[in-house]
Amino acid sequence: MQRLSIRTHKKREVLDITEKAQKALPVETGICHLFVLHTTAALTTADLDPGTDLDMLDAFEAMMPRLRYRHPHDPEHVPDHILSSMIGTSISIPFEHRRFVLGTWQRVILVELDGPRDRELVLSIAN
Amino acid sequence: MQRLSIRTHKKREVLDITEKAQKALPVETGICHLFVLHTTAALTTADLDPGTDLDMLDAFEAMMPRLRYRHPHDPEHVPDHILSSMIGTSISIPFEHRRFVLGTWQRVILVELDGPRDRELVLSIAN
Amino acid sequence: MQRLSIRTHKKREVLDITEKAQKALPVETGICHLFVLHTTAALTTADLDPGTDLDMLDAFEAMMPRLRYRHPHDPEHVPDHILSSMIGTSISIPFEHRRFVLGTWQRVILVELDGPRDRELVLSIAN
Repeated sequence: MQRLSIRTHKKREVLDITEKAQKALPVETGICHLFVLHTTAALTTADLDPGTDLDMLDAFEAMMPRLRYRHPHDPEHVPDHILSSMIGTSISIPFEHRRFVLGTWQRVILVELDGPRDRELVLSIAN
Repeated sequence: MQRLSIRTHKKREVLDITEKAQKALPVETGICHLFVLHTTAALTTADLDPGTDLDMLDAFEAMMPRLRYRHPHDPEHVPDHILSSMIGTSISIPFEHRRFVLGTWQRVILVELDGPRDRELVLSIAN
Repeated sequence: MQRLSIRTHKKREVLDITEKAQKALPVETGICHLFVLHTTAALTTADLDPGTDLDMLDAFEAMMPRLRYRHPHDPEHVPDHILSSMIGTSISIPFEHRRFVLGTWQRVILVELDGPRDRELVLSIAN
């Protein structure tokens, strides 16, 4: 079990963490499990053609209902929490020869929903 | 592989299952995999500040399109099924010393979408 | 680690891959991890009562905002990418006696969002 730290730079941002996670793989082959220790960030995969990160963030913003939320500290941040719960905070990726097995355009991404912040991930291996 | 039973009490409800799942961990360290054996419930993580459970359920309700669905038995329940498929029915959480490694405010939650019911989970360990 | 190929037949389609994945299980008991090597497809579970596949696809279509996207090659396909990232491209399912442990109506599904295509999955086992 290892910790990875990721510095984010914007309120909302899509970060490609493929290389960083791959470099931390401690064995040749297995399943890499990543878990983000936050409730306003998420992990998933995506194509990262230029502009697609911003397209994704715009779509998330447009999808989230703007209701009268109850959250005591930050009702405006409720959509950030809901996106984190919907997209999910854990992902597992197969790897061999210390490289993730991914599709041609597929990248492992961290979705920052309430940055900028220092985000922490846990990387564990099942094999 | 163990079974966990969770009793839900409302049509829609967010339940914190962190302690219950943690108590069932059979070893010190590893990755805990939870899988819910239903198509109108889901597993994810969330901050559970007071009111955030109801905020989340309101947002889910507002996001789901109200279309003329085809479902033969219960067209009104189609949004429950779709939320289950979108949020997801499996989650993996790293643990050490028989405690989940989570963020400060992060909890493991079961999202009940068509209760009240007895829900069944499977807990398995990879290590 | 094994590869599974799935042929899809429509632009958008829900395919039940339970039997195909189950047949490939190489051991008696464990956790089966499936990962789809694409950015316009997704993996999850669902009830597949007649018509529910089309209900799900209609709901996904209605949920996706139609914005002026930046994607250089295919701005119309941005919703396909976003659904893939939201639903997720990896799933883990417990199994015993070479059978998935699933709910009565629960099936493992591949959601095709930009077919028809040949889709490739990676199946790995943790146990």
